[in-house]
Amino acid sequence: MKNTFGKTVSVTLFGESHGPAIGAVIDGLPAGVPVDADRIALELFLRRPSGNISTGRREKDEFIIESGVFGGFTCGTPLCILIPNSDTKSADYDFSMEKASRLARPGHADFTAHVKYGGFEDFRGGGHFSGRLTAALVAAGAVVRGALEKKGIFIGTHIAEIADVSDRAFGDIGADISALSEMAFPVLDESAEERMKNKILEAANDGDSVGGVLETAVFGLPAGLGEPWFDTVEGILAHALFSVPAVKGVEFGKGFALSKMRGSEANDAFVNDGERIITETNNCGGILGGITTGAPLLYRVAVKPTPTIFKEQSTIDLEIGENTVIKAKGRHDPCIVHRAAAVINNLSALVLCDMLTCRYGEEWLKP
Amino acid sequence: MKNTFGKTVSVTLFGESHGPAIGAVIDGLPAGVPVDADRIALELFLRRPSGNISTGRREKDEFIIESGVFGGFTCGTPLCILIPNSDTKSADYDFSMEKASRLARPGHADFTAHVKYGGFEDFRGGGHFSGRLTAALVAAGAVVRGALEKKGIFIGTHIAEIADVSDRAFGDIGADISALSEMAFPVLDESAEERMKNKILEAANDGDSVGGVLETAVFGLPAGLGEPWFDTVEGILAHALFSVPAVKGVEFGKGFALSKMRGSEANDAFVNDGERIITETNNCGGILGGITTGAPLLYRVAVKPTPTIFKEQSTIDLEIGENTVIKAKGRHDPCIVHRAAAVINNLSALVLCDMLTCRYGEEWLKP
Amino acid sequence: MKNTFGKTVSVTLFGESHGPAIGAVIDGLPAGVPVDADRIALELFLRRPSGNISTGRREKDEFIIESGVFGGFTCGTPLCILIPNSDTKSADYDFSMEKASRLARPGHADFTAHVKYGGFEDFRGGGHFSGRLTAALVAAGAVVRGALEKKGIFIGTHIAEIADVSDRAFGDIGADISALSEMAFPVLDESAEERMKNKILEAANDGDSVGGVLETAVFGLPAGLGEPWFDTVEGILAHALFSVPAVKGVEFGKGFALSKMRGSEANDAFVNDGERIITETNNCGGILGGITTGAPLLYRVAVKPTPTIFKEQSTIDLEIGENTVIKAKGRHDPCIVHRAAAVINNLSALVLCDMLTCRYGEEWLKP
Amino acid sequence: MKNTFGKTVSVTLFGESHGPAIGAVIDGLPAGVPVDADRIALELFLRRPSGNISTGRREKDEFIIESGVFGGFTCGTPLCILIPNSDTKSADYDFSMEKASRLARPGHADFTAHVKYGGFEDFRGGGHFSGRLTAALVAAGAVVRGALEKKGIFIGTHIAEIADVSDRAFGDIGADISALSEMAFPVLDESAEERMKNKILEAANDGDSVGGVLETAVFGLPAGLGEPWFDTVEGILAHALFSVPAVKGVEFGKGFALSKMRGSEANDAFVNDGERIITETNNCGGILGGITTGAPLLYRVAVKPTPTIFKEQSTIDLEIGENTVIKAKGRHDPCIVHRAAAVINNLSALVLCDMLTCRYGEEWLKP
Repeated sequence: MKNTFGKTVSVTLFGESHGPAIGAVIDGLPAGVPVDADRIALELFLRRPSGNISTGRREKDEFIIESGVFGGFTCGTPLCILIPNSDTKSADYDFSMEKASRLARPGHADFTAHVKYGGFEDFRGGGHFSGRLTAALVAAGAVVRGALEKKGIFIGTHIAEIADVSDRAFGDIGADISALSEMAFPVLDESAEERMKNKILEAANDGDSVGGVLETAVFGLPAGLGEPWFDTVEGILAHALFSVPAVKGVEFGKGFALSKMRGSEANDAFVNDGERIITETNNCGGILGGITTGAPLLYRVAVKPTPTIFKEQSTIDLEIGENTVIKAKGRHDPCIVHRAAAVINNLSALVLCDMLTCRYGEEWLKP
Repeated sequence: MKNTFGKTVSVTLFGESHGPAIGAVIDGLPAGVPVDADRIALELFLRRPSGNISTGRREKDEFIIESGVFGGFTCGTPLCILIPNSDTKSADYDFSMEKASRLARPGHADFTAHVKYGGFEDFRGGGHFSGRLTAALVAAGAVVRGALEKKGIFIGTHIAEIADVSDRAFGDIGADISALSEMAFPVLDESAEERMKNKILEAANDGDSVGGVLETAVFGLPAGLGEPWFDTVEGILAHALFSVPAVKGVEFGKGFALSKMRGSEANDAFVNDGERIITETNNCGGILGGITTGAPLLYRVAVKPTPTIFKEQSTIDLEIGENTVIKAKGRHDPCIVHRAAAVINNLSALVLCDMLTCRYGEEWLKP
Repeated sequence: MKNTFGKTVSVTLFGESHGPAIGAVIDGLPAGVPVDADRIALELFLRRPSGNISTGRREKDEFIIESGVFGGFTCGTPLCILIPNSDTKSADYDFSMEKASRLARPGHADFTAHVKYGGFEDFRGGGHFSGRLTAALVAAGAVVRGALEKKGIFIGTHIAEIADVSDRAFGDIGADISALSEMAFPVLDESAEERMKNKILEAANDGDSVGGVLETAVFGLPAGLGEPWFDTVEGILAHALFSVPAVKGVEFGKGFALSKMRGSEANDAFVNDGERIITETNNCGGILGGITTGAPLLYRVAVKPTPTIFKEQSTIDLEIGENTVIKAKGRHDPCIVHRAAAVINNLSALVLCDMLTCRYGEEWLKP
Repeated sequence: MKNTFGKTVSVTLFGESHGPAIGAVIDGLPAGVPVDADRIALELFLRRPSGNISTGRREKDEFIIESGVFGGFTCGTPLCILIPNSDTKSADYDFSMEKASRLARPGHADFTAHVKYGGFEDFRGGGHFSGRLTAALVAAGAVVRGALEKKGIFIGTHIAEIADVSDRAFGDIGADISALSEMAFPVLDESAEERMKNKILEAANDGDSVGGVLETAVFGLPAGLGEPWFDTVEGILAHALFSVPAVKGVEFGKGFALSKMRGSEANDAFVNDGERIITETNNCGGILGGITTGAPLLYRVAVKPTPTIFKEQSTIDLEIGENTVIKAKGRHDPCIVHRAAAVINNLSALVLCDMLTCRYGEEWLKP
């Protein structure tokens, strides 16, 4: 049971929201992969809160590569990337004060962390459970994004739904991924953005929050990745995706909708298009028997609404175990769906890197 | 990338549908756990095809424990359980004949196996991808079910949906799990069974197939299991569940429905009920921040319709790569949802065993 | 803590000396590797007791490949190989009788197994700790030996020492490995065989046993395998080698002798011989910084004398915990050094296969 | 193939000798373990070069705990410890200059790193292969040393041999470990120190170096740790120990000397001493069948002489591949045996922590 993911290329996340720094170690990268600081900065920017639909906490997300890079290229040894915590309002989380009165936020990990760690958890700002940790994950994934793209593998995520507003489905996947690549609020149908943001603001005005669905496409994966049992492509991706805070469901291709179809409708017919064998449809999301078909990977995650809200909720005081009420103060996102898109893109990059490196060898990622 | 699952208690599946045997090795069981052959036989029975809604293939599923058990108790060493393949109609899968003309069944792994294994795959009856392999998984899980129950941990799965027929939701979870425990077609609302079976027969009469949704509850897990990053309870379970053939979606608690709620509706309020801290609702499915709350675990999987159908479908011939059509012959299930319930129960048992043993030590399962 | 070894190509051993069967599962072999039953039989023969210097137990070591092979080639799925236990004199190990009076053999695992498994261990014939298990390991390794050789990688082990008799050192490693390949008592200097065997018989006549040192050479490995930290080539090989029963020391190159040299004597000078960069000597055993140099790998293991002897020794009765004496009866080897050579060769093959597959990808072993 | 070690409690090392920092991440520590900065500083001091027998490089080894500790106790999340590189003489390793003429030091990893990383390695000061990395390992191990000691488990290492000078053997192990605990040149026989140091200075005066043998004892381990196959206590410890730079041999108990004994001499007789079952001797080093007996663990490692010497040696220029000679300049240790003792102690602490936590559960280390 570990805070590490990956077999050949693995990532370990560390850090607490209000500790000195957060960071990640990537082990298993081959030497000779160019490391592009601008790309890392871009991906961190896409994850960062911004505008009136986000928390007021403004981290600069300046990162330091402590190891594993030499002269602009990976040198083959574990790469540690550190993001110092700069904007931590310590008064918001005064140790002694909070110790005297700690309220478990409903829907958040305060209670489970308290039980698991027996009161020794770093509760300040959610500690290790803070969404802040996703910055380190994004930075780690961003290290490999460019190298994957040079291999022809592109990843894009759009907001499929927020509240009851839907984006259009993926169409021309290559073009769609390209269009999404620098959007902080990634939608395929421009008109959806305003409608979704209105829903977010509506909820925010009510002191409430909303969730949504993110849909990801991966273009350019070879056929034949994945194992029939346990290390299916679905299983490995889902394992990683469920660690993104607030994700409560993962489906591939048509997912739950497949369960309502008949076989004749759900099956993707094979056809030789003159050049290669493809499927006419992609209901299976590019995976059959746990193994990639060569078609784009398609998956969707359900993101629950942000748990921290400005409405009064029943809860307990963790110090004394008594019933009480809680109502959030300070800086909190009414919606994190759009910010989670960057997390999912970069986490997916790490996971795919690992699968591909297992399959094709430790040097695969090297240009 | 492996056909093995689990860290402390792990299971490796092996075997092909038409090879000499299928089986599993469980490594990491402590010594002194009673092994109940009747329980293994019962779980195999629940998975077995039966009646007019299933394939005509009738395996006796006689199993041999080759190692790891001595005098009726585990002896602490790897337990190998073998299920010889008895009812393999070899004529149905004549080696030379099939080699000359192999059609990729749409929705099945024939094509991806062919690409991955480069033509060396054992294609007879789906080989390693056959649903037959789940018998070995059920047997392996059944070894630990009884021991888990002695620790107060109970697992039950019902058919939440088939086609457009729904079962009722879990109510009194302890009682519901108990009621489901020996049902080959597990539903909570008796009246749903006939309606669902009618849907299956309807599809079968059309030469077609149906899918559905299975919902699982786990009762009696302690709070505090799981890790915040990567080895979340959701991630680990999903990793395993996606290897069950036909599963294309996994959600916890209210899952995808949560993505449409507001925070105030989705959050589960905490309350001290006088004895312990619980949540008033269980929308989160018993998991917050990747860690168990102590409430029952609730999860649902989407099962796609059986891909092998008796309707003509476009496909390609894997030997020559040319377009053709396929229409199934022989023995095939029009629905495997009900049979998958036993697979999910016993696979879940293995996964939970592993998590609990990681947490509480290698001897935890010992009575 | 597992009875499994390997990351990409892994092997799990199972079985007890007097259970139904012993066996192994190899997971991670690519499809398309020819499986040569004669080679497996040869390697099993080389491990088998024979002549007057071995136990009288005669196992036929007939093996059954239960999965993972189709039409003479691996099919890419886990390969289970089973060796039924045929020659188990059950009267020698009557369950009830032994239960009443179980003596811990000094130098053997009876006591530690009893403590670890709390009395539930299968004590018959040493159970899982029996040297018998090495037959399954040999069979598993033999599956990949031929494929490694087709890649130009050859492994050979000779008896460097038994009692105070030494074999000559490796000279022309290619030729030496070839000469050793079918020897059941593998020595480079023919004259050493008789002198060693005399030492064994001398000890046997005294009711005692002898140990020795085995030296292994691996020819044809590429430079660049291994990691600087933890997964060094030395560390991985040693991890595996120490599980061979009776091995109590492992050294690479000049090993312990290096600790007495000065740097100027120990260092292997580099030289470009016109074609490639080599070392003039090979004191480091083909490994620097945990990584292969491209020179032959050289390693030695210390094999302790067989613990089961026909002299009276002080011990305790595990059932009642009281002091007593023990003196072996029945069939036991006065020396297992020569038989262990086959185990080390085939185990090494598995370990190298795994390292190479991690480095060069899952399909590397495929011809 | 990873720079990570451990299953339940794992450590990942990162950093290059002349990069911004070196460090380690420990994952799997339970919450509530006190973290003692003084102990970490002491262990780093014991590893640090000092006096006239060591390199002139003087690192302050100031460490920063970036995560995983809150209010003086572990908080249950990954603990990252960073040691900035302060005393890096960059002129000694000018990038462009060295690029133009890089000589592979015989006996060092320069060549193998160059082959493995294809010229992208950070060659400055040995990069990731530098002995400097062991500071991070020592710091990581020191985090858990105190907690292990509170559980009654003590580790001590003495210099058994340097050149041809031997220390006395372990006697009263508890007292001996205690005596060694703060010695920077750890010997049991005080008189050995001067004689050993003279040997080191003699070699240094010749521009040469010496190696030696370290012997470690672990007191207080329970019986029953370890697995029969692969994850033997010997195998796991050896796996870790071989990653300590310069270690070329590992033996347990009497090790290689056992291979020359007869069984009657090698076997450790069991005896019930009135309180518990012990062995009269400890030739097996506290391990039988891969599993601890409850007696002290005893193991020895062979440390080769430091490869960097001030004598002229033949080598090649890595840039142009041509033959040349090398003669060290600057600051280098003529012997690292004594400094390696701290590395082995603290690495052993991490490995034992992992084994114990696997066995007794994730919370085992918590006081």
